[in-house]
Amino acid sequence: MKLKIKQSTLIDHLNYVIKGVSSKNLIPILNCIKLELTSDGLYLMSTDNEIAIKTFIDKKDIESIDEQGDIVISGKLLYEIIRKLNDEIVTIEEIVDNKIIINTKNSSFTLNSNDVNEFPDLELELKDKPIVLSQKVFKNIINQTIFATSTQESRPVLTGINFKFYGGKLECTATDSYRLAKKIINLENLDEEYNVVIPTKNLNELIRMFSEDEDVEMHIFDNKVIFKFGSIIMLSRIINGTYPDTSKLIPNEFALTIKVNLRNFYNAIDRASLLTNESDKNTIKFETKNNNLVISSNIPEIGYVEENIMIDKDNSEEIKIAFSSKYMLDALKSLDCEYINIMLNGDVKPIILKNPESDDLIQLILPIRTY
Amino acid sequence: MKLKIKQSTLIDHLNYVIKGVSSKNLIPILNCIKLELTSDGLYLMSTDNEIAIKTFIDKKDIESIDEQGDIVISGKLLYEIIRKLNDEIVTIEEIVDNKIIINTKNSSFTLNSNDVNEFPDLELELKDKPIVLSQKVFKNIINQTIFATSTQESRPVLTGINFKFYGGKLECTATDSYRLAKKIINLENLDEEYNVVIPTKNLNELIRMFSEDEDVEMHIFDNKVIFKFGSIIMLSRIINGTYPDTSKLIPNEFALTIKVNLRNFYNAIDRASLLTNESDKNTIKFETKNNNLVISSNIPEIGYVEENIMIDKDNSEEIKIAFSSKYMLDALKSLDCEYINIMLNGDVKPIILKNPESDDLIQLILPIRTY
Repeated sequence: MKLKIKQSTLIDHLNYVIKGVSSKNLIPILNCIKLELTSDGLYLMSTDNEIAIKTFIDKKDIESIDEQGDIVISGKLLYEIIRKLNDEIVTIEEIVDNKIIINTKNSSFTLNSNDVNEFPDLELELKDKPIVLSQKVFKNIINQTIFATSTQESRPVLTGINFKFYGGKLECTATDSYRLAKKIINLENLDEEYNVVIPTKNLNELIRMFSEDEDVEMHIFDNKVIFKFGSIIMLSRIINGTYPDTSKLIPNEFALTIKVNLRNFYNAIDRASLLTNESDKNTIKFETKNNNLVISSNIPEIGYVEENIMIDKDNSEEIKIAFSSKYMLDALKSLDCEYINIMLNGDVKPIILKNPESDDLIQLILPIRTY
Repeated sequence: MKLKIKQSTLIDHLNYVIKGVSSKNLIPILNCIKLELTSDGLYLMSTDNEIAIKTFIDKKDIESIDEQGDIVISGKLLYEIIRKLNDEIVTIEEIVDNKIIINTKNSSFTLNSNDVNEFPDLELELKDKPIVLSQKVFKNIINQTIFATSTQESRPVLTGINFKFYGGKLECTATDSYRLAKKIINLENLDEEYNVVIPTKNLNELIRMFSEDEDVEMHIFDNKVIFKFGSIIMLSRIINGTYPDTSKLIPNEFALTIKVNLRNFYNAIDRASLLTNESDKNTIKFETKNNNLVISSNIPEIGYVEENIMIDKDNSEEIKIAFSSKYMLDALKSLDCEYINIMLNGDVKPIILKNPESDDLIQLILPIRTY
């Protein structure tokens, strides 16, 4: 293998592929990047067994392809070397088996490479008819739900986001069993039904690679999902197991609906959270008194806080309820509107939050029994 | 005590005083901020026994001083409460002994406060004739030397910067015994001589508080130094012990002086450092060949790198020397010029780096014997 390429072109692609290189992996080959030089251009690949990433540099963006071939090389080292070669033409050449030279005008790196045959086969074949979403819409879905996923490995299926494609829509659900976030969007031209759980960590890696407002393709298989955007392909494993049916958790009727300014409500909860304890589930109290909402919390040895906010109610019902200020703040951050509806059915029933103008995004928080 | 004050005024000052509050201190009173309300205005004070900070808000910047008095209150909590009260008028009032209310229009915090008499006396009296430096000059001195201080508590005196005032100048020295940074500036109107060592950590805290290009006063005592700038006073303890005499370490004559472009040299060392090991002291090799400088390093099982740079030499002497790439990069970062002089006396003698145009800043690095 031998090629000449601009440093800036190569580093743009390494910036993606490096995300598939684990620094902690005990299997040395998974700390590597594979470069595959063909007459069409250069493929770069990495995998840590959780995700796999492949990018492609077209031959028109390569200075010269002198000899086709494959090499496998330490990912972090290749990335750091290319990153530190400022804006120059770089030559990469296999001089003898498993011995690579990376050259510029004044620098010369001679590196031991790994056996190409040890690098896993990535199985990145695509479907003919993928699901297509805008990157912006996809990123929003993730950001509005991902915080509600569980970090506990005891129920693996809750450590991912559930993607359900059916009846012309995509329904994304995240829950750690104390709270739930659900986002629904309409999808045209949806032929097949899918129900998969994608790991939180991999979705975070994915949306960090998004840059422009182009589309992303989802190719869903039994045990993996492949995302394609621009010249990048990313594979994520799917979490095995049946996602809990959450459709009956969200009531259709409410004893009381409160309308409140989102920013004022957020700031009041944020301040009240200063006098809560993690050991006490960050509990704060919420009590309506006509058109006034009183939010309060206390740590006996330290002090007490009371916040007052104006609200609108849809009836004369009054409610006292308690919940985790941390969960409430997380849920409020996902809402992007001036006012929100807080929908309630008594002090032991779920609290529902949503934009009054839209049903696309539902946030649910279970109350804490204190009263 | 009772006052009304703008949130923005109070948080500006708490931003400074919070730096004197330790989060890890086992003595609860040292996690507190003291507020002292007099007819002149409000003093805020904190100390963690390493440093003490005092700021002053003049009465003209206070909405109303209703009742003079002192309170002592949890520093982190006060800071977070005031920070989260967005741009409002805040009332702080002691309602009964050791019970404080912090009020705005919609928020009300009731906090237990601490015994004012337990708060240590800060002893912040100033000298009539302090040493005066511009904040910019002072910050430069610190940034150009501090990296060379030791982190090893085994020789406490090396964990600070040595400030020596004598003969119309200030000489600042930092060394961990493997490298040394020395900065000299001229000081007019210097009457007294001082020789003190100020802890690295405290100097870092100090320069982070600098904001404008105003002056800073240094009031030096036997066991402490007090810095005054704007309405802020900061006390730092001084490290006991005699700082080593480093004046004979820097030679006056050199067998060879090399002139090299700073940026090219830095980048070459930075790349070569990719093939060094911390366990091997990040050793890289440096070898002149006429007007060419060859920098090289290797990790046998991984690979080898060679960098070539054009240099000017003041004579035909050739040298091979080895040193820590990490120490070299640290030293080079402190120099702000297009070219630097690298001054050498053989492969076991210190390497000296400086701006060819100026003797203000000297960087010294001991070589590593490998050849």
